[in-house]
Amino acid sequence: MPAFEDVDVLSTAAKPKLSYEAHPAAKELGLEGKPWVDWSDPELRKKAEAFLRSQNWPSVSIQSPAEPVKGPPHVQLQHDFPAQDFESLSLALPRFLEGYRWQRQFEALGLGHLVDQSWQTVLEEKEKNFEHVLRFPYNGETSKEHLLLEHLTPVPRWFVRNHGEIPRIQPEDYRLKVTGLVKNPRTFTLDELKSMDLMEKTVTLQCSGGRRIEQIRYALGDGDSLINAPWHEQAISNAKWKGVSLKKILKACGGVTEGATDVEFVSPMPSRPHPSFNNNHVVSTRLARADTYFKQHEVDNYKVSVGMKKVKANEVIVAWEQNGEPLTWIHGAPVRTVVLGVIGARSCKWLIEIRVLPEVSEGPVQRKEYLLLNHQLSKYNSTFADGFSIQDMPVSSAIMSPREGEVVVHDGTVKFKGWAYSGGGCFVQRVEVSVDGGHSWWPSHQLTEKSYYGWRLWEVDAPIAAEGWLEIVCRAWDSSCNTQPSLVRSAWNWGLHVTSHACRIKIFSVNKSNPVTAARLKFMEENNIPLEPLTEPLEHETISAAELAKALRDNQREPRE
Amino acid sequence: MPAFEDVDVLSTAAKPKLSYEAHPAAKELGLEGKPWVDWSDPELRKKAEAFLRSQNWPSVSIQSPAEPVKGPPHVQLQHDFPAQDFESLSLALPRFLEGYRWQRQFEALGLGHLVDQSWQTVLEEKEKNFEHVLRFPYNGETSKEHLLLEHLTPVPRWFVRNHGEIPRIQPEDYRLKVTGLVKNPRTFTLDELKSMDLMEKTVTLQCSGGRRIEQIRYALGDGDSLINAPWHEQAISNAKWKGVSLKKILKACGGVTEGATDVEFVSPMPSRPHPSFNNNHVVSTRLARADTYFKQHEVDNYKVSVGMKKVKANEVIVAWEQNGEPLTWIHGAPVRTVVLGVIGARSCKWLIEIRVLPEVSEGPVQRKEYLLLNHQLSKYNSTFADGFSIQDMPVSSAIMSPREGEVVVHDGTVKFKGWAYSGGGCFVQRVEVSVDGGHSWWPSHQLTEKSYYGWRLWEVDAPIAAEGWLEIVCRAWDSSCNTQPSLVRSAWNWGLHVTSHACRIKIFSVNKSNPVTAARLKFMEENNIPLEPLTEPLEHETISAAELAKALRDNQREPRE
Repeated sequence: MPAFEDVDVLSTAAKPKLSYEAHPAAKELGLEGKPWVDWSDPELRKKAEAFLRSQNWPSVSIQSPAEPVKGPPHVQLQHDFPAQDFESLSLALPRFLEGYRWQRQFEALGLGHLVDQSWQTVLEEKEKNFEHVLRFPYNGETSKEHLLLEHLTPVPRWFVRNHGEIPRIQPEDYRLKVTGLVKNPRTFTLDELKSMDLMEKTVTLQCSGGRRIEQIRYALGDGDSLINAPWHEQAISNAKWKGVSLKKILKACGGVTEGATDVEFVSPMPSRPHPSFNNNHVVSTRLARADTYFKQHEVDNYKVSVGMKKVKANEVIVAWEQNGEPLTWIHGAPVRTVVLGVIGARSCKWLIEIRVLPEVSEGPVQRKEYLLLNHQLSKYNSTFADGFSIQDMPVSSAIMSPREGEVVVHDGTVKFKGWAYSGGGCFVQRVEVSVDGGHSWWPSHQLTEKSYYGWRLWEVDAPIAAEGWLEIVCRAWDSSCNTQPSLVRSAWNWGLHVTSHACRIKIFSVNKSNPVTAARLKFMEENNIPLEPLTEPLEHETISAAELAKALRDNQREPRE
Repeated sequence: MPAFEDVDVLSTAAKPKLSYEAHPAAKELGLEGKPWVDWSDPELRKKAEAFLRSQNWPSVSIQSPAEPVKGPPHVQLQHDFPAQDFESLSLALPRFLEGYRWQRQFEALGLGHLVDQSWQTVLEEKEKNFEHVLRFPYNGETSKEHLLLEHLTPVPRWFVRNHGEIPRIQPEDYRLKVTGLVKNPRTFTLDELKSMDLMEKTVTLQCSGGRRIEQIRYALGDGDSLINAPWHEQAISNAKWKGVSLKKILKACGGVTEGATDVEFVSPMPSRPHPSFNNNHVVSTRLARADTYFKQHEVDNYKVSVGMKKVKANEVIVAWEQNGEPLTWIHGAPVRTVVLGVIGARSCKWLIEIRVLPEVSEGPVQRKEYLLLNHQLSKYNSTFADGFSIQDMPVSSAIMSPREGEVVVHDGTVKFKGWAYSGGGCFVQRVEVSVDGGHSWWPSHQLTEKSYYGWRLWEVDAPIAAEGWLEIVCRAWDSSCNTQPSLVRSAWNWGLHVTSHACRIKIFSVNKSNPVTAARLKFMEENNIPLEPLTEPLEHETISAAELAKALRDNQREPRE
């Protein structure tokens, strides 16, 4: 077993100044003299939970209509914890959740400064118009418009999926431990890693919760009132990553030993001042970490695994550069994993330990989350053994331009733009757009470069004659001839992961090549009448009273017998 | 021409005590000495409009999320008037709109007491759990559950569609004038009407805006920020009406003269103290009435018409009894029209004049509203001449039980209930329910009695094996073998009238005949674990750690080669 101290690689500067010992509950929780709660102690854990539940969480403050909202589904909140996130989600589908529950848990334990530090890092490292999805743990994606700008997504524009705070580990303090079923377990410094044979690859990462909003809009389900971020279609980005193949690292440890089947990546709580051991694993015991897997009252740090097959195929990079620059704090500095062709969840950030195992990781992320459940099962009678683990991502695509609900004035042809991606080493062959809800399809004439692990950005010019609200659909075909299911129902997953159906948006078409429309637009322009919002009633007559009277005489509304 | 005084049939008791002469704007508007504004005077009208626009309407008070809501469609409100109604509609689809704009207009003119009186009448005449849709002008419908209880809808449960306040005309003061193209124009007292040959008929009335919420949810459009009530599926009711056939009344006037094609029903502003004439028509000139057709700055009282064919076919009743009782204030006491087989809009309440015309009514309700517009036209380039007038209603149906979003625990069969109706003298032959989104259909085994102008309530017991969210569809077939279009898009009308597609709801099926489900329900019951809300994460393990570990060993998630 490695010594406890070996894990504690943090610089003094990065260590947070903890203040919750002064909290009134400190004595009750046994916090005096140590700044964490030992979650593995059932007694202390019970007390800590009771304390969290006893806190006076802010009440729901969403303005209610005069009568209770009756509609699908009628949500009755039974939280002990504040319900704002979900309340606002169900009523208004806002773009940005606060994460009150997790923020308050951190604050209750005197760790509020980590919430602030997380937000500060976002402000420092992300572009100005980044679209925040969840304030804490921080999750965000760029705008649809910005996502399209470059084939290699600039780092300030990369989507962010976090499960806790954002640590700051100094490169000179960094150590990578390799343990478990290897001949010679050892520790690497960053310089040692950099001295090995390097690899560089263009790899798209995607959160399997991406496009989740399309499922949430259809029907709410388990997890909506939890941390799950209501991702739109931009939880995907593309970069060139540099590092060393994990295969080479394991070789440097003398190779794996008998029975090795999986490789686990561990990201402990880097900001904790005193980690401890529990059950042979590096486990964060600080209560604040409870947010990550607060479900079922279980707590663990971030641990995931991939099969040895991925390692042998050189599909796991231990990386320190993204688009030619050292990793930023928010994307896992100084070192992270990048696993090719699978969901982003396996690309563990702030990687400080690699463990070679005879089975999949015991981490809840691996065993209990990111599962593809049967369509007709649901939380009340599915178990974690029923779903299969989401690894390779299916073929998917999304329309980035125009935007859902946009009024598009055009001359009979509309340009559509978006992204398309397929996992598992498949690449996108073709993208098609339908402007009639999925009846006929127009192929992509322009796509960015092909690659086995990267996305393709695409453009389609589609002729549109019809006016008014139209349903636009896009779908991609990959190198395995897979394409996307038609409807959100066709790719339904109770756990709100993998929303991969053909992407559908509604636009309002205004076709200027129609003479009547052209004349009307001219009239509106001359009279300073706005086209939008569509929901505003017209203040002008669409036809004069005399013209209408004549029309009704010329074309009587009912037969006259 | 009839004398002005003939129209003023109101009892002294019913006359409102107007107070807005004391309003600061009274002098500016020329209100001194007379309690109304002459809307036909362009100068006064301009001043009155300027006054209304100058008022300090309450600002939008809906709580905004931290970031602007970005979603379909991004609504930018450009109102001079308060936008609460629409703001809340677009964000939250509330059940109940306040009608701020109209309330404030009435209040600004010192007519706030009519708003209160309208609400008071609702409280007196409607059942306790009535579902209010719009407070003023008052609109409401009963609950889905209550609508099903009786084939003849009890009056306190009847839906209410109003365009203004609710007048109280005493029966002894009541007069019905018959004018226009009749040989002998004359006036009838209520007793004179009652002395004629009577007719009694079971007739369903339906607002053509019924089920509008299903269109609003799909896409917003013109009218959303206006008065249009977000009706659910209960803007329909059935009653036995007693009165006299309009054919007989016209006969009593010596019959119609050359060129008579349409018959207009007029409901003037009964509470106005001094109506005036304008352009040969009975026109309300009081500014407060401007709310009814505030669009395009036009104002008129409620006037509609039907073709002579309906009159000749004895399909127009001048009625004073509903389900064996005298009409209530809210449903048009003392006398109203009931037009068989067409939209409710033609069944004019508080009927005080019938005019036989050589063309359709000039009333905006007839000429500019209740139109079926082309799918691909929209407000910016359709004119009132493009739509056809909605008269006969198409075949339609709706599911009343279970409710949208309901969790249904069953033994493999679920009972569905609802209404079905067809207009134009067609009757409902069959109702079918699909429990797989429209793939296979189960027929109704139980329906209430057939009638040419009435609805049928139905029940279908449908076998359901699947669990989780299911899309349930119902459709009716009528005596002309018409049935309903499949999707909301298939019966789209920009004006949000006639939402007649096959009604679709989502239910969450829990099938107890599945042994796994039965066992899980037993476990949940024993451990006091609630099934709802579905959006609440489970607090218990769905499988023990040991069982999960075994399952993962027995059935490894990835191939081991």
